[in-house]
Amino acid sequence: MIEDKTPQRTSIAQLGEFGLIDHLTKNFEINQPSTLKGIGDDAAVLDFKDKKIVVSTDLLIEGVHFDLAYMPLKHLGYKAVVVNVSDICAMNAKPTQITVSIAVSNRFPLEALDELFAGITHAAREYNVDVIGGDTTSSQKGLIISITAIGEADEEEIVYRNGAKETDLLVVTGDIGAAYMGLQVLEREKQVFQVNPNSQPDLDAYTYLIERQLKPEARKDVRTLLHALEIKPTSMIDISDGLSSEIMHLCKQSKVGCNLYEDKLPIDPQFINVCEEFDIDSTTVAINGGEDYELLFTIAMEDFEKIKGNPNFTIIGHMTQESEGIHLVTRANTKIALKARGWDALSE
Amino acid sequence: MIEDKTPQRTSIAQLGEFGLIDHLTKNFEINQPSTLKGIGDDAAVLDFKDKKIVVSTDLLIEGVHFDLAYMPLKHLGYKAVVVNVSDICAMNAKPTQITVSIAVSNRFPLEALDELFAGITHAAREYNVDVIGGDTTSSQKGLIISITAIGEADEEEIVYRNGAKETDLLVVTGDIGAAYMGLQVLEREKQVFQVNPNSQPDLDAYTYLIERQLKPEARKDVRTLLHALEIKPTSMIDISDGLSSEIMHLCKQSKVGCNLYEDKLPIDPQFINVCEEFDIDSTTVAINGGEDYELLFTIAMEDFEKIKGNPNFTIIGHMTQESEGIHLVTRANTKIALKARGWDALSE
Repeated sequence: MIEDKTPQRTSIAQLGEFGLIDHLTKNFEINQPSTLKGIGDDAAVLDFKDKKIVVSTDLLIEGVHFDLAYMPLKHLGYKAVVVNVSDICAMNAKPTQITVSIAVSNRFPLEALDELFAGITHAAREYNVDVIGGDTTSSQKGLIISITAIGEADEEEIVYRNGAKETDLLVVTGDIGAAYMGLQVLEREKQVFQVNPNSQPDLDAYTYLIERQLKPEARKDVRTLLHALEIKPTSMIDISDGLSSEIMHLCKQSKVGCNLYEDKLPIDPQFINVCEEFDIDSTTVAINGGEDYELLFTIAMEDFEKIKGNPNFTIIGHMTQESEGIHLVTRANTKIALKARGWDALSE
Repeated sequence: MIEDKTPQRTSIAQLGEFGLIDHLTKNFEINQPSTLKGIGDDAAVLDFKDKKIVVSTDLLIEGVHFDLAYMPLKHLGYKAVVVNVSDICAMNAKPTQITVSIAVSNRFPLEALDELFAGITHAAREYNVDVIGGDTTSSQKGLIISITAIGEADEEEIVYRNGAKETDLLVVTGDIGAAYMGLQVLEREKQVFQVNPNSQPDLDAYTYLIERQLKPEARKDVRTLLHALEIKPTSMIDISDGLSSEIMHLCKQSKVGCNLYEDKLPIDPQFINVCEEFDIDSTTVAINGGEDYELLFTIAMEDFEKIKGNPNFTIIGHMTQESEGIHLVTRANTKIALKARGWDALSE
């Protein structure tokens, strides 16, 4: 579908590598005081003074992590930044810089890369991160995006995965599962389109789910929210692979067990409707669907009163002794052992 | 050829994403005092105290940047680290950490990835950089490696591309052109092998050139050498795309011209012999061949005595007024305008 959106086609080979880099990076702004030198030298130069630095990196591969049949390039650029910024937020740090490397096959005209970089630029502005470097090259097949995100924090602010205690409460931001069902809707529409290219999809009933899949947001606000509540999580992780998988990471690294309560899971009404339409169990999707980019964290029991009733946070369980294992407590009050069924790029 | 070297084949899908990451990263050591937390959380945590931080990133794509027909995976892993470390050296900074992301198609067995990571581990030890993070995923085609390198320096040590002055001397480390001719030799051997798989190549006459192509080293020592000589370059860049292209970068960013002297170019006797064998002009290759990973820098004329006769450095020219342009002064004392004909991944 990429051709439909880019009637004008300029070959990227015409510009050469340096011309292309100049063209693509000209809209990037430097706003962070910690950026001394951005794009244009062998390396960027940063100064964080007495802050600690947090670094994370992700690789996004066409056909593995995204499908350009339904992912507009501008949204893809935005999402690529978001998934990396989310990792910085999951350390309770403030995102400050990113590097963006791309490899493209020659089927991509310059106009397509402009769309991609428009999304990257938009996200960089939205999350106030400076694009300080990167690499641009050709690929043998498809589009490859590699982003490294950098953030800053005071040492005492940083939250790791390994600090959860046996009686801590398990908390999640926002709602979960919607991004996965958004993907199911888009996959179905793609199949309909392949059978009948003239079909006009009516996606009004799915707008929230599709937005969660195509334009997720990183929870940059959570750091500020928790700071205002005077809560420091004991452990934290972002939900990229699915709630179940992330709970297991926290438990494994913190050496604790967990009881997760089915009736506490925060899910959106549209999500419930579409799970029914697809005849899929909503709890299974809420627990195993990935790409929500919400934050999952544990807090000390003493912080319960501070967070109770807060619309940004839902207490979905509590940690236990490691020997008790990791379980879902169902609405019928039975305990089922949780399995990490999260999204796994290598098993596909 | 990859199959010949890996008689044992373990499918990477068997291990799953997390199992694979655990397996591949278990040999990485943390040696830098600035690494507070390496692999194992949403992000790594670093502390550079009062140092400035230098960040660079590169994407290496099979079929574009390397050919596994003659590039052993262990060498590839080593080289992938070197090319990134080289960018940090080109800022006159000390490399300290790297992140390593890879995407592989399922034609790669675990044993192949072990080879690749053995090379990465070897380079990390050799250059004393901590591997602090990364991503491991599947690709649609071939092997993709994305590395981000981080280094540290005092602010007054950092050397940019834009500081060359009109009368500065132009200096290069080591010798140039050999990596390019090494590639030509390997390409020829590949073609011979394709015609006759039983041919036994005799590569004794090409060992230096092949080593320069397959196992280049980053000039981490130059920072120390220059410090001992009490020289701070006015501008610096590493030679990845070719001398000509890098000179043009320095000139453009420093707003100066340059006279480069053909008879000063440091080239190895083996390089000259092989250029004759291939009937290629050695000056053309020395100027335009890439991947030498030597450092190119400018120094003030007053520093001439300090560097004169030093076997690590060769003075190959001097900077001029910008209006004089950028020229090669040939042995016959004619001036030829330099063109950036450096290696360009996008034009292939």
